[in-house]
Amino acid sequence: MQKRRIRLHSDDRPKQWYNVLADIKMNPPLGPDGKPIGPEMLAPVFPMNLIEQEVSTERWIDIPEAIQDVYSMWRATPLIRAINLERALGTPAKIYLKDESVSPAGSHKPNTAVAQAYYNKEFGIKRLTTETGAGQWGSALSFSCSQFGLECDVYMVRISFDQKPYRKTLMRTWGGNCFASPSDRTKAGRAVLERDPNTPGSLGIAISEAVEAAVSDETGQTRYSLGSVLNHVMMHQTVIGLEAKKQLEQEGVYPDVVIGCAGGGSNFAGLALPFAHDKINGKEVDIIPVEPAACPTLTKAAFSYDHGDEAGYTPLLAMHSLGHNFVPPPIHAGGLRYHGMAPIVCQLVVEGICRPESVNQIEAYTAGLQFARTEGIVTAPETNHALAQVVKEANKAKEEGKEKVILANLSGHGMLDLGAYEKFLDGKLEEVELPAEVLERAAAVLSQYPKPEILKSR
Amino acid sequence: MQKRRIRLHSDDRPKQWYNVLADIKMNPPLGPDGKPIGPEMLAPVFPMNLIEQEVSTERWIDIPEAIQDVYSMWRATPLIRAINLERALGTPAKIYLKDESVSPAGSHKPNTAVAQAYYNKEFGIKRLTTETGAGQWGSALSFSCSQFGLECDVYMVRISFDQKPYRKTLMRTWGGNCFASPSDRTKAGRAVLERDPNTPGSLGIAISEAVEAAVSDETGQTRYSLGSVLNHVMMHQTVIGLEAKKQLEQEGVYPDVVIGCAGGGSNFAGLALPFAHDKINGKEVDIIPVEPAACPTLTKAAFSYDHGDEAGYTPLLAMHSLGHNFVPPPIHAGGLRYHGMAPIVCQLVVEGICRPESVNQIEAYTAGLQFARTEGIVTAPETNHALAQVVKEANKAKEEGKEKVILANLSGHGMLDLGAYEKFLDGKLEEVELPAEVLERAAAVLSQYPKPEILKSR
Repeated sequence: MQKRRIRLHSDDRPKQWYNVLADIKMNPPLGPDGKPIGPEMLAPVFPMNLIEQEVSTERWIDIPEAIQDVYSMWRATPLIRAINLERALGTPAKIYLKDESVSPAGSHKPNTAVAQAYYNKEFGIKRLTTETGAGQWGSALSFSCSQFGLECDVYMVRISFDQKPYRKTLMRTWGGNCFASPSDRTKAGRAVLERDPNTPGSLGIAISEAVEAAVSDETGQTRYSLGSVLNHVMMHQTVIGLEAKKQLEQEGVYPDVVIGCAGGGSNFAGLALPFAHDKINGKEVDIIPVEPAACPTLTKAAFSYDHGDEAGYTPLLAMHSLGHNFVPPPIHAGGLRYHGMAPIVCQLVVEGICRPESVNQIEAYTAGLQFARTEGIVTAPETNHALAQVVKEANKAKEEGKEKVILANLSGHGMLDLGAYEKFLDGKLEEVELPAEVLERAAAVLSQYPKPEILKSR
Repeated sequence: MQKRRIRLHSDDRPKQWYNVLADIKMNPPLGPDGKPIGPEMLAPVFPMNLIEQEVSTERWIDIPEAIQDVYSMWRATPLIRAINLERALGTPAKIYLKDESVSPAGSHKPNTAVAQAYYNKEFGIKRLTTETGAGQWGSALSFSCSQFGLECDVYMVRISFDQKPYRKTLMRTWGGNCFASPSDRTKAGRAVLERDPNTPGSLGIAISEAVEAAVSDETGQTRYSLGSVLNHVMMHQTVIGLEAKKQLEQEGVYPDVVIGCAGGGSNFAGLALPFAHDKINGKEVDIIPVEPAACPTLTKAAFSYDHGDEAGYTPLLAMHSLGHNFVPPPIHAGGLRYHGMAPIVCQLVVEGICRPESVNQIEAYTAGLQFARTEGIVTAPETNHALAQVVKEANKAKEEGKEKVILANLSGHGMLDLGAYEKFLDGKLEEVELPAEVLERAAAVLSQYPKPEILKSR
């Protein structure tokens, strides 16, 4: 009987996060004047202890015991050896999946949500605001706020709010509040609604609303929390890759290929960064962020400076961007509908440390269905993009006759995304194309900002 | 940092199921003539290898390696020490929960579904039919059939089918077919629809349909599969209690109280039977099946012979029954809406080995919400009944100043039951009363059948 689940020895649980900023050069975020911003400019938005993490270049940052304690409610997560999928594909590859779906919120998102709730609580904050796409992040932050006694207001992209009504219930169950975005609660939201009352919304718009709601609270006790993109978020997620590496060590293997779906970049980075660290230090490993063909940031968009949100409240970040006013087509993987990408992930792509790929929606659900029928777990639409790439790499290994080791992130379960599965099973899920004029439009938007440097860390 | 999750050492995984029939006397099932039925009478309904298990009095039955292999996709399940809940209640009690929600289908149900799919496959069967209440069982059997390449037809109680549309999608995702019951696909279904076209359905009716669909397949390659009630189902579920016992041993404790919600009885029995075995052998332990006040089989109904289904297709079973034609009020815990109860559980109640309790719907959701906000996991409505009893016992321990050890079964997650949480959060979940005339009506129905003996095993 072959081992299907590799558990981490409890002594091997990470006590520190890995901070890739110790190992790569980055273009700094810029303020409205085009000059690098100082930490103090972020103070109305984030607590200072998190801002310090955002800019730290220490390679290892201690995980406070209170965070380790909450992590231990579901971590270390299992590493799954997908034997049934391997057999179904007839591949000589060994497929391993890091199962982040076992968290209370059903995804990797609590890894940073718990940390952010903790640091805000320590800083004396009473309420967090945030945006959410598919709803995974809003759920994760609601759960995490319930652990530390904080209030939580979530602005949810309207198309997901409508497609997934139970996500709101889940947030409420943990005591959070959830509003469809754009809403009439903020200036940013009202401006969008005036232009386009029927907009499906976007992560960019929802971020604008959440940031505005935080900074406009006159008591000073509200801060904003971001579930992806930022450096400290990527760092908190490294527990995924650190655990996976130890688990593979227990198996006596090292991955040839590391795969994660990428929307804002956090689940990908969480798994990939510890392996990127090895690659920077000379190890060979193919590291692949996978994005939807309908929102192809890394594979199609220019590396440029752009705002992280629609209204332009955030600093300019150096990233691949489809333009901060881009409203992505309504694909079902709401968590991958973002115009930009984490600057850390972009820098790794610029340096050739990561090799981005894109897959389309039908490919993704086809892989998800095959996975459910072999390995049992019904995965999130976002995760299905990673699985589609896993299938491609496993088939490639078969063609090449190579016993490759493939590691991918099972970023979340799909129990609250079954509406999309229903459509797919009925043959009604349509392929969504990227509108042809998007890249031209993006070029026009991005031309107004400075160009980031092409930095090489090696 | 206190340990929150107790994992089973992998060498300690059960290799055998515990069969309580070795330790207690039981009234036999009766045929239409009022005489005990022989195994051959069940042959059109179940494969002979499962019928043999149903009547076996061997204390330990080997778990085939192929079943252990599928179990290993999620078993051993974690035992959770509910530290946060203990703190919130201010109780000196130690609360442990066996987390069966981590299976692919989200509940304990695959423990027997996998076994039944395996034995049917071994017997040459191509398709299984079954009923489902809340949808947990139908999902579990669909998943299990996908593991062994069997077809799966599920008759789902209409009220749950309507309340939980995504359960159907989940079954389809694993390749199963799902029909609202009563349906027009069977004689039994059509008869009910004629009498009452707007019936919410019941487990009893759905069982009739699934049995009829199995026995009327002229190829002889279809059998019926039951997710609860029967002896072999209770036995397959004992992996829960066997694991929990070892995990508590690792903690150096033995439970004072063992709790499970009880609809048909399988998750309760799965946790409780290994402890009932100890109690039969002189150990002191309070074993509590918890049922909804709106469907109070063990706490209100007579111990009698009755059919397991609405149409009277099944043999007469010795059990507490509200009458096989009882249509339970539409409470949200669909898995607890059953007129009868597993004969094994009933016998244990008759003998005083188990002490049944009932809780109402609002108590159950109140406990579920408190659990979600302390321990993170959003539990199934059925499970919430067990949690309500946990809270009562923990409060009792507080009053008595006793450091009791409470063990309960977290039988499933509530990710597909959020509609009911939404109602509860909106204050719109109403208390459901048992109609006053039910017990009188039941007495009239049951008076036509023989009386079971009051057997004492000790």
